[in-house]
Amino acid sequence: MEINGVTIDNTYAEAFPTWICRIIITAVTKEWALKAATEATGFATSAIGCPCEAGIECLIPGSETPDGRPGVAILICASKKKLKEQVVERLAECVLTAPTTAVFNGITTAEEKIAVKLHFFGDGYEYQKEVGGRKCWVIPIMEGEYIGEEEFGIVKGVAGGNLFVMGENEMSALMGAQVAVDAIMEVRGVITSFPGGIVASGSKVGSLKYKFMPASTNEKYCPTLRDKVPDSKVPAGVKAIYELVIDGLDEKSVAEGMARGIRAAVNVPGVKLISAGNFGGTLGPYKFELHKIL
Amino acid sequence: MEINGVTIDNTYAEAFPTWICRIIITAVTKEWALKAATEATGFATSAIGCPCEAGIECLIPGSETPDGRPGVAILICASKKKLKEQVVERLAECVLTAPTTAVFNGITTAEEKIAVKLHFFGDGYEYQKEVGGRKCWVIPIMEGEYIGEEEFGIVKGVAGGNLFVMGENEMSALMGAQVAVDAIMEVRGVITSFPGGIVASGSKVGSLKYKFMPASTNEKYCPTLRDKVPDSKVPAGVKAIYELVIDGLDEKSVAEGMARGIRAAVNVPGVKLISAGNFGGTLGPYKFELHKIL
Amino acid sequence: MEINGVTIDNTYAEAFPTWICRIIITAVTKEWALKAATEATGFATSAIGCPCEAGIECLIPGSETPDGRPGVAILICASKKKLKEQVVERLAECVLTAPTTAVFNGITTAEEKIAVKLHFFGDGYEYQKEVGGRKCWVIPIMEGEYIGEEEFGIVKGVAGGNLFVMGENEMSALMGAQVAVDAIMEVRGVITSFPGGIVASGSKVGSLKYKFMPASTNEKYCPTLRDKVPDSKVPAGVKAIYELVIDGLDEKSVAEGMARGIRAAVNVPGVKLISAGNFGGTLGPYKFELHKIL
Amino acid sequence: MEINGVTIDNTYAEAFPTWICRIIITAVTKEWALKAATEATGFATSAIGCPCEAGIECLIPGSETPDGRPGVAILICASKKKLKEQVVERLAECVLTAPTTAVFNGITTAEEKIAVKLHFFGDGYEYQKEVGGRKCWVIPIMEGEYIGEEEFGIVKGVAGGNLFVMGENEMSALMGAQVAVDAIMEVRGVITSFPGGIVASGSKVGSLKYKFMPASTNEKYCPTLRDKVPDSKVPAGVKAIYELVIDGLDEKSVAEGMARGIRAAVNVPGVKLISAGNFGGTLGPYKFELHKIL
Repeated sequence: MEINGVTIDNTYAEAFPTWICRIIITAVTKEWALKAATEATGFATSAIGCPCEAGIECLIPGSETPDGRPGVAILICASKKKLKEQVVERLAECVLTAPTTAVFNGITTAEEKIAVKLHFFGDGYEYQKEVGGRKCWVIPIMEGEYIGEEEFGIVKGVAGGNLFVMGENEMSALMGAQVAVDAIMEVRGVITSFPGGIVASGSKVGSLKYKFMPASTNEKYCPTLRDKVPDSKVPAGVKAIYELVIDGLDEKSVAEGMARGIRAAVNVPGVKLISAGNFGGTLGPYKFELHKIL
Repeated sequence: MEINGVTIDNTYAEAFPTWICRIIITAVTKEWALKAATEATGFATSAIGCPCEAGIECLIPGSETPDGRPGVAILICASKKKLKEQVVERLAECVLTAPTTAVFNGITTAEEKIAVKLHFFGDGYEYQKEVGGRKCWVIPIMEGEYIGEEEFGIVKGVAGGNLFVMGENEMSALMGAQVAVDAIMEVRGVITSFPGGIVASGSKVGSLKYKFMPASTNEKYCPTLRDKVPDSKVPAGVKAIYELVIDGLDEKSVAEGMARGIRAAVNVPGVKLISAGNFGGTLGPYKFELHKIL
Repeated sequence: MEINGVTIDNTYAEAFPTWICRIIITAVTKEWALKAATEATGFATSAIGCPCEAGIECLIPGSETPDGRPGVAILICASKKKLKEQVVERLAECVLTAPTTAVFNGITTAEEKIAVKLHFFGDGYEYQKEVGGRKCWVIPIMEGEYIGEEEFGIVKGVAGGNLFVMGENEMSALMGAQVAVDAIMEVRGVITSFPGGIVASGSKVGSLKYKFMPASTNEKYCPTLRDKVPDSKVPAGVKAIYELVIDGLDEKSVAEGMARGIRAAVNVPGVKLISAGNFGGTLGPYKFELHKIL
Repeated sequence: MEINGVTIDNTYAEAFPTWICRIIITAVTKEWALKAATEATGFATSAIGCPCEAGIECLIPGSETPDGRPGVAILICASKKKLKEQVVERLAECVLTAPTTAVFNGITTAEEKIAVKLHFFGDGYEYQKEVGGRKCWVIPIMEGEYIGEEEFGIVKGVAGGNLFVMGENEMSALMGAQVAVDAIMEVRGVITSFPGGIVASGSKVGSLKYKFMPASTNEKYCPTLRDKVPDSKVPAGVKAIYELVIDGLDEKSVAEGMARGIRAAVNVPGVKLISAGNFGGTLGPYKFELHKIL
């Protein structure tokens, strides 16, 4: 299959379940909401070495937020037992501390909820108040008053949706990947947790040589090893490969994000092929076949 | 003491020692270096609840980096025993994974060093190479090749330098704080680890009411509690207070940062008073007297 | 009328007709489209002293542009006889010259069109090609090939929709104005042509003292002249006023932009009053009554 | 000559004289100074079709500006007779109107000056005041008070310094050009007036086919015409060429900018060759030989 002269590989991305909490951060301006959201979702690229995976999902205009101020939705993804601790610490240290912020539950329909009791920070001076139909705590702080909800819905979502963007050289593949990330981020319900949404060093599980490593370079996809490893999967003429990893609230949003990413990347000169990563079905229950989602 | 009609309080900021690692991240453009640096220094506002304190110190032009590409210097601050783990995880997950990045030791003169052995990720395909006089490892990855040093100098620096920016209302204090942060960031060797460099909810150690809390709101500096708490330190006419927290490689750079921050904040209409936080000398050995550093 | 404790003045904004051309600029990334659009709409705040009024209307995702790449829509507003020259020069000098750009007609349903014959730049090497159903010219250039349409719809739209955001001090009014501009820009079909969308120095027609001046300071709305001019319209407690000026394709989009701007500004602490400017109906045929549009 | 494997052509860039006015715009934050500066230097890429050439030279920290606030220096370049009008209109419409701005003379040592009498906008309410040793006018406006100098030094500078960045494909050449512009902008005294500093469609004087065109595509440097025009100057393997145009206050700063640009571009994978444009010495008196300036 080809789009705009770029081959779309006949393969699928394999993904697995994760628990996700969605939080709406509002602030006096979208810039301040984004600063808090960026800090709160940092050091959260991959569950392999970070305490969670997290990212900014979308901007939300004031006309759609509980307090009428500009907002940013973030997703925090982790195992169920780690999730609460991560939400607590990230909201306490990175959002409650940030100028003019408020936080609201981003999945009001979720069956399960976690409690994030920031109001103890008020040392007894805190009180309750309704804002936009939400039951909030008000905490007196040096800035004035912090206002926020303390119950956040969590759902079982999808982690590890992915695309491989392959180019005739590094800059083509990078621009292709960047444009794909921008397109993916137009879809609500998904994040791309890596820096700029892009992984330069996709990995395989474990290591052939160093047994203590939980993951190591995916040598079959390394262009500089094309003539050195048996069974290299680097196509002729490909000099650079970037992986995009997508986490999302459900299969549909991940599939939509992947489809938009592909359709965007094929417009970048020098992009040669779009593929995806899987482990033959051993990793997880979700399969996103590239030819089907398009 | 007054500058531009704004009172500079006759007090001092109290600070304490921390271990600091300085890392130079380069990339094909400064934007990509910044994206990696932002992710690597996220979730790192305060040692109270984050695994470390970290931030972007400065941009470094290509004419000053080992590989001639645009760079960003970051500081990671923690206790000595936590520092190595944080540097390893943050470089492995947030920089090695990021497009086009390289990392270099940012304090070549340091007596102590930590080893960050990312090259095991190469699964045996890695090799050594000199770049700009630095001994680096080259790791084949899907993008092409990752290049980086693996020994990073660490020094005993200063954490907790601070300023309080007080305004006649919230927006004045916020703009004053923002301008102060911009001025602080002109000084090399310092970071402001909170979102946008600003703390909206400065804290006191412990809690009067909730014994399980390691820190709680600094009620004496809460404008809305001015008439409710005894000994409020909120001056008449002040409606909002922001704290800026500065970590730095040495006392001199922290003092210089604080001085620049003060001189900048006083130019913002509605800023009334600049002060600083201390615990009467019980917290740490460093004292930054506002009237002396100016 | 009050919203969130902020008074909404019982008055109207007066606006007048203008001719508008809407152009879609696409590029390899939205950043490059924005750079071209920013240059092409610069030096275009007010028809009083600039050759036209122009601004960025909105980002357009690749899924909605003729060539599938990320786009930016701009509006260029002027009298009918000036409009063609301005569109020609701004596209020729600021878009054709910019990396990776293409241009497309942004109002395909318009009854009137202007021709912008950039293809002569090709010096005979140019040729025609259809892109996304649009008849385009391809011009060989040093980058590769420039592609663009050469007929652009123009419509009679509305210039001079406006709001006055008044604050208890300068920073409050400025943040209120900034948030209002962000909200206005969520509406398709409108621009705010001033820097950051905000006018700091609203004017009256002509001058009382200097007869050669086509416009001069609106002294009745100057806070520092409140006690010096008769009939000052600065309310008690107001220390700063910013004007937002909105141009749009039709009355409906301007009214919607104004309504969103008001609802956003009232959330900023220290904003006291929202009003609008008119000249008693002598300036133009459009009246936007604040209480009606909300 | 080769640097980092990239050929540096043995040629020179030819440049010519222009008059330049340097203006320092300060504001409450650097963001607001930048917004005013961006508007004031828009629609100013090339003297061929724009009323002037203009651009942002550099950020200036508050510690170096007359009023202690963050600043941006801009250069406006034109013939002597056009320069005054352009400075007047751009300051009046794009800076006086912008939130919180002030303007100051950026070349205090210049022998020649132009007067920019904005104070008439005050309609008699304006008055004089000294700020940072500069004689300024204060104009009451709706925001509060505008403050600015009204005499600006002008000097005879250099226009048309240039580089050609050639790549094995479009994205490589574009990234090479982008990195070069970033490096050029580290040098004080220069601007790159095109969008993002880059020209995608470099031109020759006049047109072979369309006699009414003052400039047309430089077909000898068009990669897609390599096999169609005699004497093509596109080297084998080059698929895209971007031109960077540099204007500066003197020869030294232009040469320094060009040298930094070259040293930066050669670090981008896929950049093959750096050259420059000249007209055999017929255009202007300045010659920048690439091998000498490095």
